[in-house]
Formats: sequence, structure tokens, C-alpha cells
Amino acid sequence: VRLTALIAASVGKDGYRHYMEKELHEHPVVIGQTLQRLVDPATRRVVMPDLPFDLAAIPRVVLTACGSAFYAGMIGRYWIEQYARLPVDIDVASEMRYRNPPLAKDGLGLLISQSGETADTLAALRGMRAAGQHIVSVLNVEQSSMARESDAVLGTVAGPEISVASTKAFTAQLSVLACLTIALGRARGLITAQQEEGMVTALLDLPSKATEVFERHDEIRRMATIVADARDVLYLGRGAMFPVALEGALKLKEITYIHAEAYAAGEMKHGPISLIDSTVPVVATVPSGPLFEKTLSNLQEAKARGGRLLVFTDMAGAPRLREIAECVVAIPTVDEFVAPILQTIPVQILAYEVALLKGTDVDQPRNLAKSVTVE
Amino acid sequence: VRLTALIAASVGKDGYRHYMEKELHEHPVVIGQTLQRLVDPATRRVVMPDLPFDLAAIPRVVLTACGSAFYAGMIGRYWIEQYARLPVDIDVASEMRYRNPPLAKDGLGLLISQSGETADTLAALRGMRAAGQHIVSVLNVEQSSMARESDAVLGTVAGPEISVASTKAFTAQLSVLACLTIALGRARGLITAQQEEGMVTALLDLPSKATEVFERHDEIRRMATIVADARDVLYLGRGAMFPVALEGALKLKEITYIHAEAYAAGEMKHGPISLIDSTVPVVATVPSGPLFEKTLSNLQEAKARGGRLLVFTDMAGAPRLREIAECVVAIPTVDEFVAPILQTIPVQILAYEVALLKGTDVDQPRNLAKSVTVE
Repeated sequence: VRLTALIAASVGKDGYRHYMEKELHEHPVVIGQTLQRLVDPATRRVVMPDLPFDLAAIPRVVLTACGSAFYAGMIGRYWIEQYARLPVDIDVASEMRYRNPPLAKDGLGLLISQSGETADTLAALRGMRAAGQHIVSVLNVEQSSMARESDAVLGTVAGPEISVASTKAFTAQLSVLACLTIALGRARGLITAQQEEGMVTALLDLPSKATEVFERHDEIRRMATIVADARDVLYLGRGAMFPVALEGALKLKEITYIHAEAYAAGEMKHGPISLIDSTVPVVATVPSGPLFEKTLSNLQEAKARGGRLLVFTDMAGAPRLREIAECVVAIPTVDEFVAPILQTIPVQILAYEVALLKGTDVDQPRNLAKSVTVE
Repeated sequence: VRLTALIAASVGKDGYRHYMEKELHEHPVVIGQTLQRLVDPATRRVVMPDLPFDLAAIPRVVLTACGSAFYAGMIGRYWIEQYARLPVDIDVASEMRYRNPPLAKDGLGLLISQSGETADTLAALRGMRAAGQHIVSVLNVEQSSMARESDAVLGTVAGPEISVASTKAFTAQLSVLACLTIALGRARGLITAQQEEGMVTALLDLPSKATEVFERHDEIRRMATIVADARDVLYLGRGAMFPVALEGALKLKEITYIHAEAYAAGEMKHGPISLIDSTVPVVATVPSGPLFEKTLSNLQEAKARGGRLLVFTDMAGAPRLREIAECVVAIPTVDEFVAPILQTIPVQILAYEVALLKGTDVDQPRNLAKSVTVE
């Protein structure tokens, strides 16, 4: 797959009904152009910008963000812990800044913000610097307050994001975090050249796989008709799919005003299962992989309580899920490493389709601002 | 205040309408008898049982639990990080066991379970042991699977808890975690004898302060009439009050089937604020203290969007909150350290009162089991 070099910098709607719809369709190009900055497609190696510290010497990572960017960070934590075996402390910025957690000196302070102006994240950045952390920010706006106060900026190349509800910035943030994970794992001697080549190949395949996701639009629309009639919705996932569920629930809340809440699938039986009935469907993200069977068993519990199951999976997971779920959206099967990036896309499209059915103001949902520059 | 030595071991309802009501009224005695095991009221010092490792040598804590016990653990993390400056990794057990986080050898693995049989927590315990952690379990049933596999057990003396929705076990778990925090802080040279005396005094005052909470029953009932008519509810809190909000939302879900979701108050503007209208009230826990003004400002944002504000606070915080909130429940003002223990009680009572209005099966809510011994 050749990376496209288009910069999605146009600020019109280009024939789409909403900026959000346009920006959803920019996922493939945005992932491609973000990766283009950080990988060499010839050698299939990650090429990080010069950093004023040694990645191999980092003892721990402390990561913070707000909203969708925080959920991207949760997936980043999962990756950094799994593939680079480096412990990651994570919290939302409004908590992190006042919690004042004990931090090891010379750790990596990692911050994520589309605008680079998020007030709580900027304050957390300053707290981390005061605690002796190296500061790396993952930003879409590279001329911003956070950029000026960082030791290094890893840019997402998402272009302007006009829709208040973030879409393409999220997958761009994940693309950057995936490359950072590979760089950390390599520096720590935990990812071989061969493994790196495989991981980079999986990343470089994403733009074309992401394009294929849009071929599932009819199934997603069918799912949307059920969600649009729901009283409330539970989103479920395990492991790196739990933050995908959180992102899906947040997007649905933001633009449809339906109360959706995400839970780690294994926690459902410790409380929220009592909410489940035919008016509260369960939306789950369950691609094939090591957590597939465990999540399936949670879904069977939900179904036994009268829950309607609406499931996002991949081609490999679809046959088993079709036996129990009312709706199944199966996207291409990809390497477990990059699956959270691809699985995010249909979950965001679902929220958009529900908003169309509800007739809400998709691009300017009530009460929300694009960039939260107050505490 | 003299600690009562009664063991709340009776298994009848003792004239209460439900076990949950009876168990709510046992908070004062359960806190008292749990503390009695861990503090010397004469010297006002914490007296820990013999541990087969040195508290001063612990490099980090890794903490896990499920459901309510997990929220108790979140408050424990807050305390251990603030007062003992020891970093704490925390996650729900169903995630922790499969996430396999990188752990420093000889760390403290801390587990919390009422029954000592929670399947995911037991599995996480075994994973922590395999990763070289010292294992301490906070358990109500001291003859249990988790007890047998722990290096030490810190018992909660809550007596049998019959109601499926946990109440008194939660404050007992917090009482134990508060003592462990003091022991860790003292071992690390961060809590002086004088500070310890003050912290222990605040703990020993809790039974009588907890009794005073029940004098606010009429105000809580009034709040319950509003919540019972709500479509959905948002619970908010900052810092150690965020887990209190989580516990309140979980309890409401469990026994009333009203969809309540808790958010860190500072995250509200990154999404959930779009849900707020007159049918979705905001329940907040906002005692006086360093985070009071910040939370107040979040509540003002919610009110500006048409949200009805129902607030738990203390006597010191009440005057300011009465200016903006529709209902204010003010309980005794206590030291910031022990405030989360006391603030939990009215939040649990609220869920009970709403359940009475809804006519649900309080002690045996649908779909839920008391002890989750499957994954």
C-alpha cells in the first residue's frame, strides 16, 4: 500500500452533509499521512524525531489527556505496557493535576491534545515538568501552548478538525502512539527488527483496511436504527477494546444525547448488568484474539438477561458472533496490535448514523465546545 | 468516643424493612469494630498485624478489586499516594489479570473482596504472586480462597452482609485502607507521630459522626423523590470524592435500575455535559476542602445548562452550595483524610430511598449475585 500524501486541509464540507461525516471519511488518509512522518516505508522501521533524552533510559511513563484523547491514551498505555514492558500511569488531566502523584525522576510525561490548548492538560504538563519528567506531547495543532512547553512534539497530521466531536484526530493520535510504542520497545531491546517490520507493515496496511470499513455502512445503519430507539446503551470491551468502547459511548452521548456508558466487559456482572433489558441494548467491540472467548461469555450473560446484542468484530470473529448477536458488523481482520485503530472507525460511524436518525445538530452538539480552554 | 465492641453478626432484619436498611444502619458499629483491630485508642497509633515483609521497603503498590471494592481501592490509591507518597497502579481485576502489567519485584499486591471468593480478583492475586509481589488481602470473610493464598489478611469486621448491594463492607474496607495508609506513611518516614495521632483521632471519631449522618434522613428522602423521577443521573466528584460518586452511581444502578453514571467533575465538559437537561439531574459530592471551589465551578456549568443540582457536602461547604443547588445534604465536617468514608454513607442511603420509591426488590436486585465466583 502506497501512503497518500494528501493533506486534508480543506475547510469546506466537500459535498458531505456534515463536517463529522467528511472527517470520518478522512480516517484512511489521516492515518496514512500521520504514519508517513514516523515510518520509513522502504525499511519498515519507525523513525522518531530527535529527542533530547534517551528512550532506553525512561523508567516509567505518566500519561494524561481529556475526553477522546484520554481514551487514545488508554490504548497507548495498553500498547506501551504490552510491547515495551514499561509501566504507564494514566489519569484524566483534571484529576492528574490535583492528585499530584509521586513520579520517578526522568520519567516520560506524555500528553495528548488535538488543539494543544486544553487547559487541564496544559496544567498537568506543567506539573509533570516540575516533577522532573521529560515532556512529549502528541498534538494536532503544532503551533500551540502545549507545543511551546514540550521537549518534543509528535504531530498528528489530521488537518483541521471542525466537528466538535473528534473522529480523525483520534486515529491519528493512535497512529502516533503505536509508533512511539515500537520506538520504546526497540530501545528497550524487546522488539526485534523482524517484529518491528511486522508491526510497521500492519500499520501501513491500515489506510486501505480503513477504506474497506466504509463498505460495512449498510450494516452500521441497520444497527443505528436499533440504537436510535434505545432508552440507554451499554458499550462493552476488554483490554485495548475497552477504550474503544469508551470512545463509542462518548461519541454517542456527545452527538445524540442518548445516555451510553462503557464498561470493561468483565465488570458488567458487578453492577451494570442490572440495567440490561430489551430497551437497553449492548454494543460490544469483540475482534478475534486472545480476549475473544472471555468477551463472548460476557455477551452471553447479557443476552440471557434479555439484552439485545449489537456487535463490532472482524471477519475471523464474525461466524461465532452471528450465532448470538442481533447485528454483527465485521470489518477486516488485522494484526491484534493495530486492531483498536481499525475498530474505532465503525463505532464512530454508528454514533453519526444515530445522530442523523435523531436529527440532532451533529457538528455543534449542545453544551459542548471544540477546545476546552477553561478548567 | 468509645468504640463499641458489638459484632454485627445477627442474620435477621432486626425490625428493618430490608437487609440493606439494616446494614446501612450498621455503618457506625462496623467502622468502629474494624478500627478496633488496627488502632490502639490509648496511644492513637495504628497497630498492624505482623507482616512477612518490611513496609518501608515496598517500592510500589498494585491494587485490584471488582465493583464497589474497586471504588474503595480507588480511594485507597488516593490516600496511599497522598500520605505515603508511594505510587499505586490500579485496575479492575478482570482487566488487571489479562493486562499483565509490568511490575517491580517485591512490590505490594493489594486485593480487596468482601467474600474472598471473587473469581477475577483471585486470578489477579495469583498473577501478582507469580510476578513476585507480596500479597495482602482486605477481606470480610477471613476463611476464604483469597485468605488462604495471601501473605497477610487485613480483616474488615463488617459481619455477614446479606444485601446483594454492598454498603457496610465498603466503609469497613475504607477503614482498613486508611490504617494501612498510615502504617505505610509512618514506615516511609512521611507521617510523624503527631500527624498519626491526628489521623487516628479523625478515624476514631467516625462512628459517632456516622451516627449523625442519619439525622439527615429527611433531606436525603427529599432528594430521593427527585432522583426517582429522573430519566438518568450524572454523579460527580473530584479527587477522593470521584470514587464516592462512582459508588453512588453503582448503587443506584444496582437497586433502582436508573441509569446513573459517575464522572470526574472536571471531565464533564469533555462530553457528558451534553446529556444534561431538566430530566437528568446532577448528584455531586462536594465537601469543603482544597477541591471545593473547582467542583463548585463545574456545578455552575451544569446548572447553566439546565441541570438540577443535588449536592452532598459538609456543614462547612453547605452555605455556598445552598446558593446554587436545589437540594443540599450537609453532614458533619471532618478531617479531609476521612471525609470519603463519611460521605459514602448518605450517597448509599439515597440509592436505598430511591429504591423504596420505585418499589424494586432492594435486597435481591435482578440479574445480580452477591459474590461473583465466575469470570
